[in-house]
Amino acid sequence: MTDTLPSTTAPAPHDSACGRRPLPADRATARPVEAPGGRRGAGIGEVRLTGGFWGRLQETNAHASLEHALQWVERLGWLANFDRVADGTTGADRPGWEFSDSEVYKLCEALAWEHGRRSDPAVLRILDELTARIARAQKPDGYLNTAFGHPGRPARYSDLESGHELYCTGHLLQAAVAVHRVFGEHPLVDVARRAADEVCTTFGPTARDGLCGHPEIEVGLAELGRALGEPRYSQQASTFLERRGHGRLRPLPLRSAAYFQDDVPVREADVWRGHAVRALYLSAAAVDVAVDTGDAELLDAVQRQWTRSVARRTYLTGGMGSRHQDEGFGEDWELPPDRAYCETCAGIASCMVSWRLYLATGEVRYVDLIERTWYNVLATSPRSDGRAFFYANPLQQRVAGTEVSGDVENPRAEGGVRAPWFDVSCCPTNVARTLASWHTGLASVERVTHSEDQDVVTLLHYAPAEVELRLSDDQLLCLRVETEYPFSGDVHVRVSAAPAAGVTLRMRVPNWAQGALLRRDGSTREVLTGWVDVHDVRAGDQLVLQLPVGPRLTHPDPRIDAVRGCVAVERGPVVLCLESVDLPAGWCLDDMTIDLTQPLGDDGRGAIVTLERRAGSATEAEGMPYRPLRYSAASVDRERVRLHPYHGWAERGPTTMKVFLPTAL
Amino acid sequence: MTDTLPSTTAPAPHDSACGRRPLPADRATARPVEAPGGRRGAGIGEVRLTGGFWGRLQETNAHASLEHALQWVERLGWLANFDRVADGTTGADRPGWEFSDSEVYKLCEALAWEHGRRSDPAVLRILDELTARIARAQKPDGYLNTAFGHPGRPARYSDLESGHELYCTGHLLQAAVAVHRVFGEHPLVDVARRAADEVCTTFGPTARDGLCGHPEIEVGLAELGRALGEPRYSQQASTFLERRGHGRLRPLPLRSAAYFQDDVPVREADVWRGHAVRALYLSAAAVDVAVDTGDAELLDAVQRQWTRSVARRTYLTGGMGSRHQDEGFGEDWELPPDRAYCETCAGIASCMVSWRLYLATGEVRYVDLIERTWYNVLATSPRSDGRAFFYANPLQQRVAGTEVSGDVENPRAEGGVRAPWFDVSCCPTNVARTLASWHTGLASVERVTHSEDQDVVTLLHYAPAEVELRLSDDQLLCLRVETEYPFSGDVHVRVSAAPAAGVTLRMRVPNWAQGALLRRDGSTREVLTGWVDVHDVRAGDQLVLQLPVGPRLTHPDPRIDAVRGCVAVERGPVVLCLESVDLPAGWCLDDMTIDLTQPLGDDGRGAIVTLERRAGSATEAEGMPYRPLRYSAASVDRERVRLHPYHGWAERGPTTMKVFLPTAL
Repeated sequence: MTDTLPSTTAPAPHDSACGRRPLPADRATARPVEAPGGRRGAGIGEVRLTGGFWGRLQETNAHASLEHALQWVERLGWLANFDRVADGTTGADRPGWEFSDSEVYKLCEALAWEHGRRSDPAVLRILDELTARIARAQKPDGYLNTAFGHPGRPARYSDLESGHELYCTGHLLQAAVAVHRVFGEHPLVDVARRAADEVCTTFGPTARDGLCGHPEIEVGLAELGRALGEPRYSQQASTFLERRGHGRLRPLPLRSAAYFQDDVPVREADVWRGHAVRALYLSAAAVDVAVDTGDAELLDAVQRQWTRSVARRTYLTGGMGSRHQDEGFGEDWELPPDRAYCETCAGIASCMVSWRLYLATGEVRYVDLIERTWYNVLATSPRSDGRAFFYANPLQQRVAGTEVSGDVENPRAEGGVRAPWFDVSCCPTNVARTLASWHTGLASVERVTHSEDQDVVTLLHYAPAEVELRLSDDQLLCLRVETEYPFSGDVHVRVSAAPAAGVTLRMRVPNWAQGALLRRDGSTREVLTGWVDVHDVRAGDQLVLQLPVGPRLTHPDPRIDAVRGCVAVERGPVVLCLESVDLPAGWCLDDMTIDLTQPLGDDGRGAIVTLERRAGSATEAEGMPYRPLRYSAASVDRERVRLHPYHGWAERGPTTMKVFLPTAL
Repeated sequence: MTDTLPSTTAPAPHDSACGRRPLPADRATARPVEAPGGRRGAGIGEVRLTGGFWGRLQETNAHASLEHALQWVERLGWLANFDRVADGTTGADRPGWEFSDSEVYKLCEALAWEHGRRSDPAVLRILDELTARIARAQKPDGYLNTAFGHPGRPARYSDLESGHELYCTGHLLQAAVAVHRVFGEHPLVDVARRAADEVCTTFGPTARDGLCGHPEIEVGLAELGRALGEPRYSQQASTFLERRGHGRLRPLPLRSAAYFQDDVPVREADVWRGHAVRALYLSAAAVDVAVDTGDAELLDAVQRQWTRSVARRTYLTGGMGSRHQDEGFGEDWELPPDRAYCETCAGIASCMVSWRLYLATGEVRYVDLIERTWYNVLATSPRSDGRAFFYANPLQQRVAGTEVSGDVENPRAEGGVRAPWFDVSCCPTNVARTLASWHTGLASVERVTHSEDQDVVTLLHYAPAEVELRLSDDQLLCLRVETEYPFSGDVHVRVSAAPAAGVTLRMRVPNWAQGALLRRDGSTREVLTGWVDVHDVRAGDQLVLQLPVGPRLTHPDPRIDAVRGCVAVERGPVVLCLESVDLPAGWCLDDMTIDLTQPLGDDGRGAIVTLERRAGSATEAEGMPYRPLRYSAASVDRERVRLHPYHGWAERGPTTMKVFLPTAL
């Protein structure tokens, strides 16, 4: 058994100009995506969350979820699969799906970012130990996968459609990117380099004309190419990308080519379709390749797909994937709340795409979608103790789940309760790596090229944090952000250090924040949604952004048939929901409507609405549920009822739940 | 290549008391289900359809679909799989799914009923030839399956969960039942007897404690036991039934025990769940076992499941199965029109259950559901030329399908066009066997035990037909039914022969037929929905039933969230739909509402409604489809538009389609 993580951590040392510097300066700017161009995200050591919504999620991730994931990959033998390869004891009885290696790699990536965030020797020790076990399984030519190419196992690359070998390698490369940026040279980087070399040799432009059924290798190669300055890797990402969409993959039984996006080349597609995580990892890679090669057509293609998919195939929560079947996107307007798949990993993958598009274009809409997805998909998945997760994130739960007793594995998608682990367990480690590096998306920096202009620092999201960003000429901008966002809309920004020439501080006014106010130097002005620029920011400045986070009604487009005649209630970036545990005794979600003539109350976290219980329909004698007369029922009861944040649903026990509330029967 | 069927058939000879008798008298009463008890369906030779809705379907089945299916099972090697077993040339390259044998058996069953219906030597020749090829593949101990137990193939019964071996055998037995009842002894009956014996030996009460992942063997054994008077077979059906529901089947990856109804014993379950065809074949067998053993608790259990499932998990069309995922039932009220699976086979299986429940109880509700399912699921599947089929039967098509060019295989479930054949091709042969024996469900006979009472003959459905039923003491009731039902509601019944003591003629007034009239001897009376009994019917009597088939609105229960704020239009037993090909130029199904203040027009087949095209929503700039204000749009156009029968949708080319029409945006 690998070492377990300590349950508490030492506080980070505080010794920089801004009061702290846990990582060497050249490592502080480490971040998952380092796209060429003038805009970058914050470094892993440039922002420190000081509590708040995301600070708590990040701490729970650090002190519960990482250890939890480590125990599970050990318990299920997914980690021991590496040992078995090294020891020559592989066989038909290998535990886990073909892609279980990737969970170990995502855990390594999470550990690397976690070390970058906190410089914790315990974390480092685990990472080193995992690396040693992984490295032993690597073949002399660099090939590394525990499911293929060993005694008792299928041959290497014998099942590109379903085998997930290159998918696993992609996650290894992403882990190595994190390790390289946080640690510099490290044995895991060597492992990844040799694995990437083997991939390039086997699948290079003039070698085998293959591609993986599950995109991921592309995004791994692209970023490793950037991290190591190795153009062959970037080129190989492009090669894989361009091979896709021409029907090279053999059709799987009952699955079309669209399932793995092999139906249409990525630069020709108009919309996301097929398996959601596949579609989104592929699009993230397409942005990487487009940016690396200056391919405007390819970048346009991804933006076009984003636009239509967000307009017609995306849930209010930001969730994507309308079908359990194939874990896939549906048609335009096919957005059933009860059968919403909205896989946690698809939410993460959507943010990966939007983040790359934001870095490439600077458009605010990408960050708006990230925020929506973070608060309503990413934050919904982990249980408050960090030891159970949602895999699917439906917007309606018809039947209350069954409490999971103990630390047991669950089917992946259904059940209405968070599960400790899954048979297909991609989500927990994906959440872990995303939370560990979450704060690198809090802000971005644009160094300007004309010396007379100011650097632009953009606050993309609002969380209590200490921020210390390196700008042009090694100058620092140090900020302290204080806020109880998203529950309060007041955001205080205090500038403790800034370049002498000042900087431009750009802040995002979310697209729902009509009537936001900005206060500076005692004067207050209304600011429009989108970007608001504050020029000439200098040390000692104080800014207050006031976002109107109070509850508001949201109406779905009538083309979304599945929620016709319903409204949702949101509060700031947080989607609210009605849970049966909050209903008066004897009420049921099935026979309840919302009275829109009554005001929305604000309880500081959710909302208070007036519901009417309707008699009649629910008490009909059984028979086919279709009648010659319109169902009608008088309101028999009326109550003020509390709506809670969707991200916390089912935290108080199994419950039925609705995001969209009918306005009439 | 097996002989093909002739494209036309000779007219049946006419030489009985009622004017015809193609089969020997002792074969004329052959029918799929021969439950003990006083009530039986019509025999294959006791009813002859004389045109009309079902007559045309039956003729198309006879002269196109049977040959079509034969060509496909030959073309794909599913038939040659039997030859390969006999020739010892099996291997890993065996074409077809594990269950492809069953398509050959269902075709045999269809051919047997078809021969029973028409006494066609060409049909008999094909059946004999298929039988010879099947018989050669049988092992000396009776085992018969082309996918297991041969060189290069997995071992016998090594995968009860997914292997479908006993499922295939069940279809063999059902085919043998048809053959035995139509022909008497025949080589296929010998094959089935030996196969059933092998099953009883291997899986008997004191032998291997196994069961099949897909129910079907149970219903096959039960009926073969009745046909051959072999109580061991009936006992084995009961044994398999009772083994189910205790978690004996190993869970399949990502599938729960409910998928194959191994979660709860059938006598304890309250509702259908999991894979729909599995659930329904199992329930059909449960009725068989309950009736054979006088098990009132078991019969009650199936009725309880029927009641709740029909009230909460059944589509307006009678279709069952709300999920593509697992081809399964959803939760209560989970009935999305666009993702309705409503597999054709599930519709057929539902009718199998309801037919058995009707025979057991005499309750009219079971026949009402059969009628709904026949007109809107069974009749919807085959294309008008009988050479393409729907597998899934959704109630909304969002994107028009792509015309199938040529006689090519298709994925099973989606596409919006009927396909010539499927990878999983259970539906075409299931339709074929059902249509070939369809008329045996037209009427039922109850012989009475007290000599002073009259036999009861029930007309369950209305179709132009010559009916010649054998009653007590070998007396005959001969009727001629003339009607253009379902398009006209007038049904004329002329009695040409009847027992001297008279009979009671019972007629079904469908549950939608408020205000039906019955005319006898010049006097007309209103009759209530349900059964209407006409006593003392004698030769020369004429009856006219007048059913109000005009278009009517149907409102869904508001608990069916997916169609909130919508209505459907029905006409008699026929569900109507709106197809985009009937919309005015420039209109789209997405931005259209129905104006309920305008009258429904009747065009004799469908309905004419007033639609309003709403501007606004569909022309919004792209962005997330959620807004702070309620979407509203003035009506910009208003047109009278024709709704057509759902069963004929997509017959005029690919189209988008809706059964449920919004009353407001």
